[in-house]
Amino acid sequence: MSTAREANDQLWIMPFLGQLTDDCRDFNDDITSNSVTPFTYYASLVQRKDPLANSLLNPFYTFLNHCSDIYLSSHRDSQTGAFLGRRIARTLRSVKITGEERSFVQFLNIFCADNRTLHNYFNNKLLKQFPFVSDPEKTFFRLLDVSSVKYARTNRKLETYAFENLIKIEDALNIFPVHTQDDSILEETLLMSAMNYSVQIGGKRLRPLLMFMVADLYEIELNRILPLARGIEYLHTSSLIFDDLPARDNSDLRRGQAALHKTTINNDISYNLCEGRAQLAAVDLIAISMGLINGGLIRNGFSFESVNRVVGEISLLMHDLCIGQMMDLRAARVGIEEDSKKIDKLDRIAWFKTGKTIEVVMILPVLLAKSPSDEQALELSRIRKLSQLMGIMFQMRDDLLDVEEGAAIGKPAALDIKKNTVTYVSLIGIDGTRERLQQFLAQSLQLVDECWPKGSATIKDVIQYFVTRKT
Amino acid sequence: MSTAREANDQLWIMPFLGQLTDDCRDFNDDITSNSVTPFTYYASLVQRKDPLANSLLNPFYTFLNHCSDIYLSSHRDSQTGAFLGRRIARTLRSVKITGEERSFVQFLNIFCADNRTLHNYFNNKLLKQFPFVSDPEKTFFRLLDVSSVKYARTNRKLETYAFENLIKIEDALNIFPVHTQDDSILEETLLMSAMNYSVQIGGKRLRPLLMFMVADLYEIELNRILPLARGIEYLHTSSLIFDDLPARDNSDLRRGQAALHKTTINNDISYNLCEGRAQLAAVDLIAISMGLINGGLIRNGFSFESVNRVVGEISLLMHDLCIGQMMDLRAARVGIEEDSKKIDKLDRIAWFKTGKTIEVVMILPVLLAKSPSDEQALELSRIRKLSQLMGIMFQMRDDLLDVEEGAAIGKPAALDIKKNTVTYVSLIGIDGTRERLQQFLAQSLQLVDECWPKGSATIKDVIQYFVTRKT
Repeated sequence: MSTAREANDQLWIMPFLGQLTDDCRDFNDDITSNSVTPFTYYASLVQRKDPLANSLLNPFYTFLNHCSDIYLSSHRDSQTGAFLGRRIARTLRSVKITGEERSFVQFLNIFCADNRTLHNYFNNKLLKQFPFVSDPEKTFFRLLDVSSVKYARTNRKLETYAFENLIKIEDALNIFPVHTQDDSILEETLLMSAMNYSVQIGGKRLRPLLMFMVADLYEIELNRILPLARGIEYLHTSSLIFDDLPARDNSDLRRGQAALHKTTINNDISYNLCEGRAQLAAVDLIAISMGLINGGLIRNGFSFESVNRVVGEISLLMHDLCIGQMMDLRAARVGIEEDSKKIDKLDRIAWFKTGKTIEVVMILPVLLAKSPSDEQALELSRIRKLSQLMGIMFQMRDDLLDVEEGAAIGKPAALDIKKNTVTYVSLIGIDGTRERLQQFLAQSLQLVDECWPKGSATIKDVIQYFVTRKT
Repeated sequence: MSTAREANDQLWIMPFLGQLTDDCRDFNDDITSNSVTPFTYYASLVQRKDPLANSLLNPFYTFLNHCSDIYLSSHRDSQTGAFLGRRIARTLRSVKITGEERSFVQFLNIFCADNRTLHNYFNNKLLKQFPFVSDPEKTFFRLLDVSSVKYARTNRKLETYAFENLIKIEDALNIFPVHTQDDSILEETLLMSAMNYSVQIGGKRLRPLLMFMVADLYEIELNRILPLARGIEYLHTSSLIFDDLPARDNSDLRRGQAALHKTTINNDISYNLCEGRAQLAAVDLIAISMGLINGGLIRNGFSFESVNRVVGEISLLMHDLCIGQMMDLRAARVGIEEDSKKIDKLDRIAWFKTGKTIEVVMILPVLLAKSPSDEQALELSRIRKLSQLMGIMFQMRDDLLDVEEGAAIGKPAALDIKKNTVTYVSLIGIDGTRERLQQFLAQSLQLVDECWPKGSATIKDVIQYFVTRKT
């Protein structure tokens, strides 16, 4: 199954890689003939010192990264490695042969400017091997692993990142019975179906994706923190099941499908049990999540001490989410009190409802990657501040979306969609909200640069998405 | 506050201790005059080799234990110790002086038969000091701590045990806000009130008491596992809040008070928010419980590794409780399917609903007291078996109580109280259920002896209570 999927991935990559190889090999010719390719375009930006170059993917790294991906997904098969190594060496030899005296060094100066190790490797080691075009894959891929790959991984666009990683998360989300040794227990099966129904209704999986991005920055292998990413998504799903119940938002639908408390699953229980089952499934998701995080991280080699800290943070998060939902419950039903119509209050709701989860998602990989003495208190407090801003931005964008959707379908009093509820738009207006959103955006991007000075364009792209998203 | 309470305890103990001292000192005279005192009665049973002696408290140990309690609650004050030491020495000297040649040894043979260390200490060390009646308290209390006290602690009646320990649990159960550094958050306060309301509605606190009893057997200081005892009680409270909701048992009352989803607390929220708040408070109790167990046990000096195992067991317990409640939900609403009217099925419901918690309560102190390599797999599997039996006995007694109550208030069709629901009584009748209960009782008491050969009369008394309880 997963091998078939990997094979499919490679089918998709191959023509793209072929094109990149051609563009790289013909770089000098294309410069001469003024042809625009990813390589010549990137080179022209670098030479003009255009800041846009910093937010554009380096096509040479993309080329190397794809080669590396293929090599890694072949499980470092030596024949595949030799094939790819020869391809890279031949491509670079073309760059050297087709240009002038210093053209190869110039090429490296453009495309490996930020990676001295790789630059030196190509210029010293690999150059000498061009006459032989032998199989330099071993040293080569080792270098790729430690430098180029990391850069490529942490500076992709959200969409590219999601394309590669979402499948890892989706594939892992299905929940299986715990009691496998006994005969299967009917009631456990009923809970499993319910939990998986709600988990599979889907969502953007933004929380686990964001956690993966931070884990990449700290060079944690994604499979190792997968139990944590799954656990966080289950907690999120659990809170959505509770949100939809009659005593709360009373919503019959969730993402266009029947909410769990409004549906049987293949007629497995009588309809009058659905709400009770939904409540139990939501509690069970918490239980499964805690067990998975507590046990899975240990199995994946993290220390008992760091896992203890993680469980502590998760417990606190659950408490804070309850507070956030209590805020929401009061705000939705009774409105925020007139006399305290303060934007601070809205900010606090957004922080507890959305920001706290983002905080935990971004903090936990740091806690797992570093020993307690290592941690930069400054770094952690910056991440906490950033998460708070992201939570508020997410909510401001939500309020704007309500109005924009209302306007789009011609509703006159779009502001009244959430009756009796104070929103950012009702407090400071559409323009005020948009303006504040831009201020927070600038502040957040600044914080990302301070948290991760070596660059995390992917996380920046997530923040851009928070501000511009249409759903 | 707690000092005032301790002072009160001592006031209560003093006359009792005075009487015990007199009865001990006059032992020989009372034997001669055929007076019945706790000492002469116990001695007559021992001399007749009456098995009843094994289930009766040894009055001499009770006397020593009270002295020890007073000494310990004086924080080992040396003057208090000297006073008590002199009292014990003088009392024993009276036993020696008033009787015949071997009367002191005979006294020790009766009252310290199962404690060689104490026997030797009195017969060798203390005897030599009688002429001086000096202050032998130090060695003496050290010996008491390691032997007599443990025996006395683990062989009391449930009522005595609860009298002493319930207050420790009740005093610790109140939940306080987590966010104390910020301004208090209104919504956190609303959740705190709700959680404390449900926690304070009370209950027998059987789970934490049982955990304390097992902890005593493994000589774990009770304060150290208090976070775990509290956490388990919170999880239990959480499940009761969910049980009462309209989609489940739809019960407006809990122990004669309004169920949480049917009440405001001093009009703190509008009535239409009560059910939503109850759901959030029930989830929050899980969060508070996990945080407390995970963090509190570490603060109390248990290892990260053992706490990790505890959190794993608790997560699994939560999952199993969901299964048990799902079983209950189906059984209550649709009845157990006709064709599978098997007693096995009822046993399994009782095991998941009640037995699993008992199991965790009795297993966790063992896990905390012993290193993984130490554990006797046999011991653990016996405890698991015992817990399963206890869960089933508890449920059988519940079913009998329903019928007995029905009969008491003159309801003709008491069997129909739980309409459409299969119970032990409906399956095997009143006499059949009583008989099976007695079989399980014998089996359980046997298992207790196998688990703890040095005696745990208190746990046996809990099991007796399971079988005979009237509420």
